Amino acid sequence: MSFESLIARANAFRDARDWRQFHDPKDLMVSLCLEAAELLEHAQWRNGDALKAYLAEHREEIGQELADILYWTLLLSDDLGIDLEDAFQRKMDINEQRYPVDKARGSATKYDKL
Amino acid sequence: MSFESLIARANAFRDARDWRQFHDPKDLMVSLCLEAAELLEHAQWRNGDALKAYLAEHREEIGQELADILYWTLLLSDDLGIDLEDAFQRKMDINEQRYPVDKARGSATKYDKL
Amino acid sequence: MSFESLIARANAFRDARDWRQFHDPKDLMVSLCLEAAELLEHAQWRNGDALKAYLAEHREEIGQELADILYWTLLLSDDLGIDLEDAFQRKMDINEQRYPVDKARGSATKYDKL
Amino acid sequence: MSFESLIARANAFRDARDWRQFHDPKDLMVSLCLEAAELLEHAQWRNGDALKAYLAEHREEIGQELADILYWTLLLSDDLGIDLEDAFQRKMDINEQRYPVDKARGSATKYDKL
Repeated sequence: MSFESLIARANAFRDARDWRQFHDPKDLMVSLCLEAAELLEHAQWRNGDALKAYLAEHREEIGQELADILYWTLLLSDDLGIDLEDAFQRKMDINEQRYPVDKARGSATKYDKL
Repeated sequence: MSFESLIARANAFRDARDWRQFHDPKDLMVSLCLEAAELLEHAQWRNGDALKAYLAEHREEIGQELADILYWTLLLSDDLGIDLEDAFQRKMDINEQRYPVDKARGSATKYDKL
Repeated sequence: MSFESLIARANAFRDARDWRQFHDPKDLMVSLCLEAAELLEHAQWRNGDALKAYLAEHREEIGQELADILYWTLLLSDDLGIDLEDAFQRKMDINEQRYPVDKARGSATKYDKL
Repeated sequence: MSFESLIARANAFRDARDWRQFHDPKDLMVSLCLEAAELLEHAQWRNGDALKAYLAEHREEIGQELADILYWTLLLSDDLGIDLEDAFQRKMDINEQRYPVDKARGSATKYDKL
């Protein structure tokens, strides 16, 4: 498995349908935001154990929402010439520096207020 | 590269900081939504070539936003017992059926109106 | 007080700055979404009584976020020729029909599943 | 017309259905975010004149989305003890200071970069 093979499948899908003409980065970013909202909708009016039970019962549906989010994340990365795995590793490096274990342990405080 | 190794890094990061106590699925979904909005903010008031030029100049920053989105997507999948790669492949199967090439080619119409 | 006077102030503000040229409906909708996300960010990692205490302490800031949301809602309504108060009253009529008191009482179920 | 009468109608609606028990501020903020995303969905894959034509044809539907956003904005303000009209006027005062006409005229630059 690699991001490349997933990106290849997503690109083959949109190219077979001639959809790249619609894939302005702004609309891809809007789409990502809308899919994140669709996922969040599952948690609307649900909390704690009732939410967890709901999510376990709807795992297939939730998996599809997460897949949609991944789909747009991969296409945006590809269109913008960003290596997503590399970006992820570099962001984790940054987060490890921003949130030193001794200061951040057990605290939900944002790095600029630590 | 595999999702497993990325998930392992994300889990090691949060566990070293004892953050799993805050990681209720609802807050992870909220976080994903907020990161998608942060990405979209880069496209606010920017369009067409001006947007593309901006995104090319800010590739590092945009890569970090996409990495944040991937981070929450991976943690949510892991916490909910969802195999993200598998979910992605299954959703692509569904999309290929929902949008037959001959009907969907060159059209931005949603599947339920095709 | 009337929406008209609030819309008049918002329009005077943007016209003095010659900003109507940027106010494509898509960017206004994006702006509304981003402001809603900024408001939601205050609830990230906060729940129950801790959230309520935080909101009481930050009432001024939260009021500003709600004002930003109202600002874009008013400008969008005005630009699209929609009478917002009228739309609100009509939507309440619809909601009262969709959610009959005897069926909806004490239930968080969406109308299409009632 | 006054916000008070709109808030009164929204409160009567939820109280008749005994829904205040679900109206935790976090869920109201989530709901506001989801409604803003529903509105934005109308602009997905639509731009320029095609978007404007679409919005004119769907004015009733768009008005309902804006009404939903207003509904949650009013209830949140009321629940948090915020006078929304007052908050709006104060935020406009702040914006007028942040964006002096001579500096902001014709520019989409954010105040902290003016």
